[in-house]
Amino acid sequence: MTLTQQRATLALDPDRLLPADPATRDVARGLYESVASLPILSPHGHVDPALLLNDTPFGDPAELFIRYDHYVTRLMHAAGIDLERLGIPTRDGRAGAGIAQPRAVWRTFCENWYLYAGTASGYWLQHAFATLFGIGEQPSAENAERLFESIQARLDTDAYRPRALFSQFGIEVLATTDDPLDDLRSHDALAADPRFTGRVVPTFRPDAYITPSAAGWADNVARLADWSGSSVGDYRGYIEALAARRRYFVEHGAVSADHGVLQPLTLDLDEPAASALFDRALRGVASADEQNAFAGHMLLEMARMSVDDGLVMTVHAGVVRNYSTQTFERFGPDTGHDIPTATHYVEPLRPLLEKYGNARDFHLVLFSVDETVYSREIAPLAGFYPSVYIGAPWWFLDAPDAVQRFRSSVTETAGFYRGSGFIDDTRAFLSIPARHDMARRLDSAFLARLVREGRVDLASAERIAIDLVDAIPRKAFKL
Amino acid sequence: MTLTQQRATLALDPDRLLPADPATRDVARGLYESVASLPILSPHGHVDPALLLNDTPFGDPAELFIRYDHYVTRLMHAAGIDLERLGIPTRDGRAGAGIAQPRAVWRTFCENWYLYAGTASGYWLQHAFATLFGIGEQPSAENAERLFESIQARLDTDAYRPRALFSQFGIEVLATTDDPLDDLRSHDALAADPRFTGRVVPTFRPDAYITPSAAGWADNVARLADWSGSSVGDYRGYIEALAARRRYFVEHGAVSADHGVLQPLTLDLDEPAASALFDRALRGVASADEQNAFAGHMLLEMARMSVDDGLVMTVHAGVVRNYSTQTFERFGPDTGHDIPTATHYVEPLRPLLEKYGNARDFHLVLFSVDETVYSREIAPLAGFYPSVYIGAPWWFLDAPDAVQRFRSSVTETAGFYRGSGFIDDTRAFLSIPARHDMARRLDSAFLARLVREGRVDLASAERIAIDLVDAIPRKAFKL
Amino acid sequence: MTLTQQRATLALDPDRLLPADPATRDVARGLYESVASLPILSPHGHVDPALLLNDTPFGDPAELFIRYDHYVTRLMHAAGIDLERLGIPTRDGRAGAGIAQPRAVWRTFCENWYLYAGTASGYWLQHAFATLFGIGEQPSAENAERLFESIQARLDTDAYRPRALFSQFGIEVLATTDDPLDDLRSHDALAADPRFTGRVVPTFRPDAYITPSAAGWADNVARLADWSGSSVGDYRGYIEALAARRRYFVEHGAVSADHGVLQPLTLDLDEPAASALFDRALRGVASADEQNAFAGHMLLEMARMSVDDGLVMTVHAGVVRNYSTQTFERFGPDTGHDIPTATHYVEPLRPLLEKYGNARDFHLVLFSVDETVYSREIAPLAGFYPSVYIGAPWWFLDAPDAVQRFRSSVTETAGFYRGSGFIDDTRAFLSIPARHDMARRLDSAFLARLVREGRVDLASAERIAIDLVDAIPRKAFKL
Repeated sequence: MTLTQQRATLALDPDRLLPADPATRDVARGLYESVASLPILSPHGHVDPALLLNDTPFGDPAELFIRYDHYVTRLMHAAGIDLERLGIPTRDGRAGAGIAQPRAVWRTFCENWYLYAGTASGYWLQHAFATLFGIGEQPSAENAERLFESIQARLDTDAYRPRALFSQFGIEVLATTDDPLDDLRSHDALAADPRFTGRVVPTFRPDAYITPSAAGWADNVARLADWSGSSVGDYRGYIEALAARRRYFVEHGAVSADHGVLQPLTLDLDEPAASALFDRALRGVASADEQNAFAGHMLLEMARMSVDDGLVMTVHAGVVRNYSTQTFERFGPDTGHDIPTATHYVEPLRPLLEKYGNARDFHLVLFSVDETVYSREIAPLAGFYPSVYIGAPWWFLDAPDAVQRFRSSVTETAGFYRGSGFIDDTRAFLSIPARHDMARRLDSAFLARLVREGRVDLASAERIAIDLVDAIPRKAFKL
Repeated sequence: MTLTQQRATLALDPDRLLPADPATRDVARGLYESVASLPILSPHGHVDPALLLNDTPFGDPAELFIRYDHYVTRLMHAAGIDLERLGIPTRDGRAGAGIAQPRAVWRTFCENWYLYAGTASGYWLQHAFATLFGIGEQPSAENAERLFESIQARLDTDAYRPRALFSQFGIEVLATTDDPLDDLRSHDALAADPRFTGRVVPTFRPDAYITPSAAGWADNVARLADWSGSSVGDYRGYIEALAARRRYFVEHGAVSADHGVLQPLTLDLDEPAASALFDRALRGVASADEQNAFAGHMLLEMARMSVDDGLVMTVHAGVVRNYSTQTFERFGPDTGHDIPTATHYVEPLRPLLEKYGNARDFHLVLFSVDETVYSREIAPLAGFYPSVYIGAPWWFLDAPDAVQRFRSSVTETAGFYRGSGFIDDTRAFLSIPARHDMARRLDSAFLARLVREGRVDLASAERIAIDLVDAIPRKAFKL
Repeated sequence: MTLTQQRATLALDPDRLLPADPATRDVARGLYESVASLPILSPHGHVDPALLLNDTPFGDPAELFIRYDHYVTRLMHAAGIDLERLGIPTRDGRAGAGIAQPRAVWRTFCENWYLYAGTASGYWLQHAFATLFGIGEQPSAENAERLFESIQARLDTDAYRPRALFSQFGIEVLATTDDPLDDLRSHDALAADPRFTGRVVPTFRPDAYITPSAAGWADNVARLADWSGSSVGDYRGYIEALAARRRYFVEHGAVSADHGVLQPLTLDLDEPAASALFDRALRGVASADEQNAFAGHMLLEMARMSVDDGLVMTVHAGVVRNYSTQTFERFGPDTGHDIPTATHYVEPLRPLLEKYGNARDFHLVLFSVDETVYSREIAPLAGFYPSVYIGAPWWFLDAPDAVQRFRSSVTETAGFYRGSGFIDDTRAFLSIPARHDMARRLDSAFLARLVREGRVDLASAERIAIDLVDAIPRKAFKL
């Protein structure tokens, strides 16, 4: 497409994200074409399995693209638009009447479309608008109503129901993220459904059960004890119940257990010490340090269980959740104010790696929102420990330039074969193809540059491009 | 210009700073041309208003380009040249006879011109030499005398007096930085002068009045009490006097208050606690922690006052000032040895943001000399809080490659509309057009790459390029 | 070479590492050609002087390329291959029978060659294979045996003995790294040998003598006392013995003293305080803090001695050595699990710089494996202090993209003339030409971009390219 044609349209450039230099772009295009239509492996994300089980049509454009995507709402909030105007209900329901209706939310979004220029969210939205809804113009106040109707009309057809899109997207594996006490009935029903041939697997996410400072931790411990039949304060029963729930997940198809922590602290406590902290935490008398120590101990316990049961251990570290108390209290979590902070892996993870770093078949995937650790800590660790895998750029870093900085930071130390493969980590179902397509283009661009710089031969680049979307995630996540 | 022509000249390449790839360069050139001659908005800097009030001719080339520019002198110091040889007087005046004279300083500089290749200072000097003085050759020992004469001859003409240059540079707004007790008479006189049509506004800079560890703090508190008529140890009177001085600045045209801190610590103390610390600090018995706590409390108080009086709050954090005690004692501050250090914003700023982050019309512009916070902390904060604006790359980072790293780091998370616009932050009056021109070229280059990568359409890029030098700084600084 | 020709070969692209844009590549090629064959100055590294003294032929391909290069072995270890299979003996010798033989090691390596794509190690290996052994194909299981034979055949010829290669590589100066009590007889013998005309100089590396927490410190102190004739617990005697050993090194050609530290802590203690810590450390009763304090004091003492005796002081900071206790206990140090960590220079180095930062002829070269300090700390320090030199990218950062990030990070603040010049820091003798060639190409690429962006004129770029491999390292290391 020429620049003149591209003027003021939303049409997708077929060479988007490829390098500007023509000869490098040619190489990149060739690499991209060899991977563009390979199946999507999505071994970590937040899609609700009920979406696919029930195959309920999506509601409306605002619900689909705005209401639940705090990446989208936060930028309008930053522009001074209250969350109520974006259709987000308050926790207490009191602002019910003040909540904007879908068409109003959509209009506000279209009026503020300019905010998303150059952002990852804008890129994904543009991709979905263009590829799924045939929208070839920039959203604006003028066309807001028309775009709403146009999208709604398609959403009302069978081709836009979740299962049809799942198939159209070419998803082979999709992992959800689930509460340890979830009965996984949705997963079972999906697996048993002869009309659905995709593979949707659960992920064990125990944060709220192993972190004393997490909201509801004591209640969760009690629910766990209730399920297992042990007494609430019985530390060994607690550990055995967690192990049993993990086995339950394994039996229902899970391949990994995911852990979200502020800092990836690990501690190797003996059972009496751990049990004493558990007791103090349950009685509500543990200090912040003691709570952190117990959480650090439990993270190491989770590694031990992964060594035992084979679940891949993924760690997402470094985010201060619910940074704005005011917004959290009014609107709840996941409303756009989780903020990254400086994160360290080398010293905090050492107890875990001392114990299990060289364990056979143990996989530990490290994700960071602090870019500084890519070259300094994560790549060197993954360049030695067979257990350590480099998590793909995550959250704020899941964007074109950030992905290129990531590849540049880790590859020279750890090569291409110590990574997790691309992870979309999204609850925005419609963004999944856009995200994987973005990753494939960026990896093709990166490889093409190395080819042009005489650092990788073309045949190797072609093999690596395919491995990055196939063999590498299959290995890292034991798919 | 061909490479052959460019050989060994100082002539400015009309495409300087634009991307190498020809097609991308074409796009960038078009974007740049649309903004190249727009007025300069300079909402934060250190030009002395008396310069424009008195319109005194600049003295000589050494005074103009070297003597007061510690960016320039520090590199010669690092090459082993004593500051006396660069015309910098010692504090006690004892080295008077040893201070080099302007022609000698200029010659030393020309001999050492090679030190500046690839630096931001070198780029700005080259720009000023070429555009203002018609110098098309590299300074050297051979041409030092001739260049001195040539520059001096122009400085002696009316066209090179400050007001004529102000007009020639196309400056629309210029903010100075001023002591809270400054009577702002220079600003009043300039505003009242019918022969001067520019807008020169003061900036409230209270560091030395709110930071107990700052040199002269207690004296400043006493002067403030003296001005307000309250007693020196009266905490409430101190707070009210600061608020009154801010109002005085607002009445005299100020749009912002600027704060320089080592770490952006904020604390929300109640009045008795704050008053007690104030008392201890004044009596000289506060510990370092207590001094820091009081400074953190005062930074939060400044935010409260900004919410009240509307002054934009700018924070420049992370610089260890006067790192070399030996040099500081001999030559004073601003002599080239202020050194950045690792800086954190997320936890230290939280008390302030908890209280005022969502306050209407509160603007908080965060500047950093630690690049790691751009993608990790500042962009995520500015992508949620309507109050938080991303400060332009500052000090050591105000340079071509650093600016591109900055844009790459913040845009994908926060877009283009959460920034401050370019800030020159300079006391080097002649470098102002060079710096703004640099920023416009770099933003054009960045946008052109996104256009070429299919991430931003050309029409949006054109609008953004203009907004970056017009609407965006006007909004951030309430111009 | 066209891309088609490049397919699946290991042949070296003559334009490798040069920028993709054709016009920029042309400039870069010209710059590179002007420096490609200049002599190699290697002022810091780990080649054993006995290698050159004895001129013993290299054993076999596995010993030459794999066995001693923990950069190579760590990536296979990360792929799940035990170190025994890579020919690495256990410390206790018990696994003797399990150690793979050279041909098996070589085969394992060839089978896993794909792991090195895009890595620095892969780049250097490819360079050596192609330039020294005429290998123009990718190693693989199929050709492993043939490549082994082919390399072995050349190793058995005189042209591949160490001295012949030293000459062929064009090495002018090579520094080794030596124990303070080394008698330097190898160096003397080499210098006295009329058949060897190269300059091989020792480097004083006192870590194990000045760091109480280092393994064997007390024994080393005792050996030092034994050598000097002072009593073991005599602090002043200890200091004088170290100074005497440094003088011995100076007399035997040393130009620098090297210091490896976790954090570059410096402390300025008076003699009684230092002596008391020394005493406690020797008696084994010093706390960790006391041990660190003494080590910080000794680092400052080393600076004082450098001011006295003129040895350039190099500091390599920020690596956690022997991170995996299990691997360390089984295989010893330098087996691939030294991991970088966040490092700070500004506050820790301040006592040293306060005392000696402006001292005449004192040279302090700062190396980092934490990239964040390049723009934030090291470049600003080197842009002011005449003593501070910016160490070249080191260890994990000694790779093409990392080197470009480094140049981009430091140049705008400190220019080109405050660096150390390229440092190979290697024990892999055969990689020396590959590494220096890499650095010359990358600097040419960086300079070419600045030329194309109108930031440096071509004549200056040509001079800088030459200075970077000649005048700059000669000055930094007083060669």
